[in-house]
Amino acid sequence: MTTTEYESNVILSSVDYNVVGTRPIRHDGADKVTGRALYGADFDTAGLLHGKILRSPHAHANIVSIDASKAEALAGVLAVVTFADFPQVSDGAVDFGEEVTTVHDLQSNILARHKVLYKGHAVAAVAATNPHTAEEAVKLIEVEYEVLPSAMTVQDAMADGAPILHESMRTNELGETIEDTPSNVAQHFQHVKGDVSEGFADADVVIEREFNTVTVHQGYIEPHAASAVWNPDGRLHIWCSTQGAFPARDATAEVLRLSVSQVRVTPMEIGGGFGGKIPIYLEPVAAMLSKKSGRAVKLVMSRADVFEASGPTCGCNMKVKVGAKNDGTITAMQAYLAFEAGAYAGSPVGAGAMCVFAAYDVENAVIDGYDVVVNKPKTAAYRAPGAPNAAFAAEQVVDEVAQAIGMDPLDFRMKNASTEGTRRPDGTVFPRIGCVEVLEAMKNHPHYSAPLGENEGRGVAIGYWFNVGFESAVNIAVNGDGTITLVEGSTDIGGSRASIAMQAAEVLGIAAESVRPSVVDTDSVGFTAVTGGSRTTYATGWAAYDAAQDVKAKMIQRAATIWDVDADSIELKDGVFQSSSDPELNMSFQDLAGQLAGTGGPIVGTASRNAGGMGVGGGSFAGNIVDVKVDPLTGKTDVTRFTCVQDAGKAIHPSYVEGQMQGGSVQGIGWALNEEYYMNDDGVMANSTLLDYRMPTSLDLPMIDTVIVEVASDHPFGVRGVGEANIVPPTPAIANAVQNATGIRMDRLPMSPVAIMEESWKQS
Amino acid sequence: MTTTEYESNVILSSVDYNVVGTRPIRHDGADKVTGRALYGADFDTAGLLHGKILRSPHAHANIVSIDASKAEALAGVLAVVTFADFPQVSDGAVDFGEEVTTVHDLQSNILARHKVLYKGHAVAAVAATNPHTAEEAVKLIEVEYEVLPSAMTVQDAMADGAPILHESMRTNELGETIEDTPSNVAQHFQHVKGDVSEGFADADVVIEREFNTVTVHQGYIEPHAASAVWNPDGRLHIWCSTQGAFPARDATAEVLRLSVSQVRVTPMEIGGGFGGKIPIYLEPVAAMLSKKSGRAVKLVMSRADVFEASGPTCGCNMKVKVGAKNDGTITAMQAYLAFEAGAYAGSPVGAGAMCVFAAYDVENAVIDGYDVVVNKPKTAAYRAPGAPNAAFAAEQVVDEVAQAIGMDPLDFRMKNASTEGTRRPDGTVFPRIGCVEVLEAMKNHPHYSAPLGENEGRGVAIGYWFNVGFESAVNIAVNGDGTITLVEGSTDIGGSRASIAMQAAEVLGIAAESVRPSVVDTDSVGFTAVTGGSRTTYATGWAAYDAAQDVKAKMIQRAATIWDVDADSIELKDGVFQSSSDPELNMSFQDLAGQLAGTGGPIVGTASRNAGGMGVGGGSFAGNIVDVKVDPLTGKTDVTRFTCVQDAGKAIHPSYVEGQMQGGSVQGIGWALNEEYYMNDDGVMANSTLLDYRMPTSLDLPMIDTVIVEVASDHPFGVRGVGEANIVPPTPAIANAVQNATGIRMDRLPMSPVAIMEESWKQS
Repeated sequence: MTTTEYESNVILSSVDYNVVGTRPIRHDGADKVTGRALYGADFDTAGLLHGKILRSPHAHANIVSIDASKAEALAGVLAVVTFADFPQVSDGAVDFGEEVTTVHDLQSNILARHKVLYKGHAVAAVAATNPHTAEEAVKLIEVEYEVLPSAMTVQDAMADGAPILHESMRTNELGETIEDTPSNVAQHFQHVKGDVSEGFADADVVIEREFNTVTVHQGYIEPHAASAVWNPDGRLHIWCSTQGAFPARDATAEVLRLSVSQVRVTPMEIGGGFGGKIPIYLEPVAAMLSKKSGRAVKLVMSRADVFEASGPTCGCNMKVKVGAKNDGTITAMQAYLAFEAGAYAGSPVGAGAMCVFAAYDVENAVIDGYDVVVNKPKTAAYRAPGAPNAAFAAEQVVDEVAQAIGMDPLDFRMKNASTEGTRRPDGTVFPRIGCVEVLEAMKNHPHYSAPLGENEGRGVAIGYWFNVGFESAVNIAVNGDGTITLVEGSTDIGGSRASIAMQAAEVLGIAAESVRPSVVDTDSVGFTAVTGGSRTTYATGWAAYDAAQDVKAKMIQRAATIWDVDADSIELKDGVFQSSSDPELNMSFQDLAGQLAGTGGPIVGTASRNAGGMGVGGGSFAGNIVDVKVDPLTGKTDVTRFTCVQDAGKAIHPSYVEGQMQGGSVQGIGWALNEEYYMNDDGVMANSTLLDYRMPTSLDLPMIDTVIVEVASDHPFGVRGVGEANIVPPTPAIANAVQNATGIRMDRLPMSPVAIMEESWKQS
Repeated sequence: MTTTEYESNVILSSVDYNVVGTRPIRHDGADKVTGRALYGADFDTAGLLHGKILRSPHAHANIVSIDASKAEALAGVLAVVTFADFPQVSDGAVDFGEEVTTVHDLQSNILARHKVLYKGHAVAAVAATNPHTAEEAVKLIEVEYEVLPSAMTVQDAMADGAPILHESMRTNELGETIEDTPSNVAQHFQHVKGDVSEGFADADVVIEREFNTVTVHQGYIEPHAASAVWNPDGRLHIWCSTQGAFPARDATAEVLRLSVSQVRVTPMEIGGGFGGKIPIYLEPVAAMLSKKSGRAVKLVMSRADVFEASGPTCGCNMKVKVGAKNDGTITAMQAYLAFEAGAYAGSPVGAGAMCVFAAYDVENAVIDGYDVVVNKPKTAAYRAPGAPNAAFAAEQVVDEVAQAIGMDPLDFRMKNASTEGTRRPDGTVFPRIGCVEVLEAMKNHPHYSAPLGENEGRGVAIGYWFNVGFESAVNIAVNGDGTITLVEGSTDIGGSRASIAMQAAEVLGIAAESVRPSVVDTDSVGFTAVTGGSRTTYATGWAAYDAAQDVKAKMIQRAATIWDVDADSIELKDGVFQSSSDPELNMSFQDLAGQLAGTGGPIVGTASRNAGGMGVGGGSFAGNIVDVKVDPLTGKTDVTRFTCVQDAGKAIHPSYVEGQMQGGSVQGIGWALNEEYYMNDDGVMANSTLLDYRMPTSLDLPMIDTVIVEVASDHPFGVRGVGEANIVPPTPAIANAVQNATGIRMDRLPMSPVAIMEESWKQS
């Protein structure tokens, strides 16, 4: 069986394909279900040492001294490293320019320099002959701290007299650096379109609300792991669980001041990332421990390490104001977005600002974004980073305005929906997009008109993610048996071996099962950007398309040689090469593949594509219809029905598109109802285990129904990345449903029973 | 330090290069000297089982029965396999045609079918949780044999009434199959040029001699090893020590009746092969044990297994007759070459016949070749297979004729030397070759005129190997730091990562150290033939040249885009792109590489080349000048001075060319003086250990002086493969030196003290 039989809810695009749109079994399936696949922590080699990292117990403190002598003296310990072991970068050196700061931040987040900025911040590391000795050894490292007051939220950090994390940090205020005033605000930017004063003046209804969200984690199952061998010839080989072998290579090289090609990264299989496995944490530490010890060294995070010292996404403080006429025309939208960056600059507020009003073709808008450092782990990307936060605010106010003017919330959104040519407040002009089509599919879905039970409510919301392009390389070689091998640099998190292989198969007229995809190390394929930004099926798929076209052209040329006809007379259709000069001149792909060796040699194809920057193909819209049942006595909220509609452009493998939609929805549900970093007064996370950090299980969830809308992008098959937009609408859709069920408007996340009961008392 | 300082003896070709011809440190050097490189037996994985093979104690016997029940019952045993576990191939089935026989032979040599044909022939195999249990278990397998008389030499096997190995074997006699007569002679072919009767009639001197050689082994340090995982999805993954991952893949697929792309072969590092690691032995057995057990299985040969059950090269019986005029013109040459194939058809007699008179431009010649099966392991390739045997005969008779007419042996050879346009007896017409140049370099070498001491003698000989082309694929990707990664399918036995990388570096104007070469598995690069036949630096190097040209063209195009000039105006010279339209438009390779990401994306290049068949580039000639000192009391022969001259076309990395010349010379010295399979009367090798099988050590050898001659071939840099021709002249050169020192003409190998004393008594 090569395709599944179950019915798809795909709203089909009009083009018919042989392979694209079918549901073959993924190429890595057997390896993964039988446990044969090797993940980060599975790495082993002769003489492997095990590392352990000493982490800060304080949220904010100066490091007075580190004494590792007792650890170094412990039998079985072969190396100890601290920040001092990094290649030193001189502050403000002219020839390094801006990069100096960046490298310092990168280095300091990996091993703390002078001060610790969050509980869990790495301070030192040990490599020993076994994990137990390493664990004993880190306890013997004596660190003297001078504890400082901490700032845990943007409100704390932006307050007058707030504890300053970085004495050297100055605010970039609308493009100008404010000198001489240390600040926790790294940046304030503003997007302006039209005149919001006029817009609000024209409105019949204006509603403004303030919202807060807290830190949440991606919750991937596999903790971070990295192993390193620093070879005597100067080359460093890393094996790690990463979303991008090349970005991990380049970042490791930057931190260690090596040239990129001195580092080779072999990506192991990855047990989830969702953006959190883009940054590096352990790689340079393992490398330095290897260099010092002369041995291979492996580092694996515990679950608490993952929570406290990898990159969750941000909590934030937001204000959104929307004005509309009674006819349903939105006249102005305004947002204030202050996002936590964690301990170092770089929150997802920029992306949040690009997405917050993306669904609306509004004349007048202002968006203010603030990037604020706080004493928490440096945030990392988390599935459409910034967009779910922003949508939680914007889509609730939009709903409230629709209610105020008495309009159906989907009709209200459709009346104001962005279309091709709409200019967003950030200046981007949309190409062809599927915003209206997603809203129409929601409106037409039986779920939207189904009856509700007691204590139930229904909410809708739409969300956007812009998707990215970037670079991808693919090599293809034709085997004599009519199969092809396909080498790619994109690590496979969610079935991309299949979705990329299928695009090559479609071009060559062969079955998806006739492709042997391999994800290889950084020495074995051309530069390929991260698996993230919903780019992989789009960009690496396009590279596979290009490489397959290269193979196709060479095979047509070969057939022309064999038949002694003009290559222009030959076409490949449904897996058969045919010459228009003679109907008898036809040969299957497999037959021609079998003749290559004897007619000039085997055929290989290659492609390296720069698929563009941010917003390629117009991005993707996703909408949710959600029913909830809220227990009036406890505030416990159950999601009783959930429909996710998303524009996939073209679903290469509908099952994996549906899987992405379901996965994003579930993460959104967890974020909406339960997940949070519960911090105590000392800035310590009180729930750093998967028992206490409450992610939804299958028992907490209804079936997530999916509807795939297909509004083709500029990609050869019309693909849009589908990995992210689906996490954007759940939090506001659930909030809108809670409001519909209870009348309570939730202005904070998570909407836990406690929060709902508190709001209930406050609002009643 | 990137190049060594010691003086080269290269006779330089006239073209100057930046990288080609230098001596950078090999890219895999550090991995290998530090023990980090992983060889066949180093493979490990979770739950790995260890296999052991039961081997025949008899040289020739019918298998009456195999009872493995006791082995299967032993605790820790998870699988037992015999020939019956192979996918069965029906005898003589029309749709399989000739292939049926081939597959049967392949299968039967891997696990015996119905009968065993040599001592050590594999009969059954066991997989168990540890090697000790596996060893115990094979002893519990009860095999009942009916012992048959055996034929151990070509003379035995060709005698009337000889024991027949294969009842179905019929002689192919000059192209015709002789039906109804079972025979041990698989084939008799004949090459004819001119009329030897006339030629011999025209001669003033005619000399004819008979020669015998015995079985010798390649003696690679690393025993064969193969591990397999037969995945539940039907794909088979093999890790093995092999000279060719793709040929190992294809042969394993053939034996197991799988499609080639169902098998993935990851080549481990290889500790020597010399031709002996081209065939497969353990791979299908490990695969079947994995399929039966559901686990990964590793098989490793012992040294005795390697001697008794891998493929050594043949012993042979030869007659050579040469006639010449008194002026030194050779008028006729005749050879009778009967070579042992081992237990299955396929001796190197064909190659021996191509090489035996290749150095001589003779009008009249006849060569008869006989391929004869005997009760010894199936022979495999061994460095210029067949040629050293043939040269041992031919180059002695040529020497003797020169003596008879009173001519210097090098002058005699030069007078008759092959040149461009010479047609060999097998019909091949030489392109440009370096036979004369090699002989001239020998004549001019100070060694040739140096004085000799007491009991010393000097001999010369020339040898030839035709070299092969075949298919190679290379992928190149440009890194942002100006380095490139280079992916190749050629396993690296003798420094080919360096010699291939250097050719790409030369094209791109970058340093050899700026190339990161990787040897990858069969799923990760285009089809690449075996590392053998002296093809790798020639053919894969040419593919690297092509791939680098592809990269160069794309980079020129990119520079044209950046500069907004015509691409035709740009050339890459010494690592700098320059536009003829403006002298200020120039940029180093590294600078342009750093700009690729931002100007259209990274650049990759690829090439797949079919470099031709046998005899590409005209092959290579090698000549030796050898001084020996023979102890008149014991017959012990010491090589006191040894000079090897070889045509490398163009030495890409002179150190590795010299290494090949020295290595081939040493193997030739061992073959000449000591090495032999010492067989007892039951067909059992009596010296199957490296203590008793006497290979030369450094204590047995003088420094091997090398002179590289460079007569360019058709390859872009003029490369000729240099791996093999150097093993051809040592045996006759040493025999000629022994004759010069003692007056004794040795007609057999090895020329051990015993053999020399026996001949001394016989000839005195």
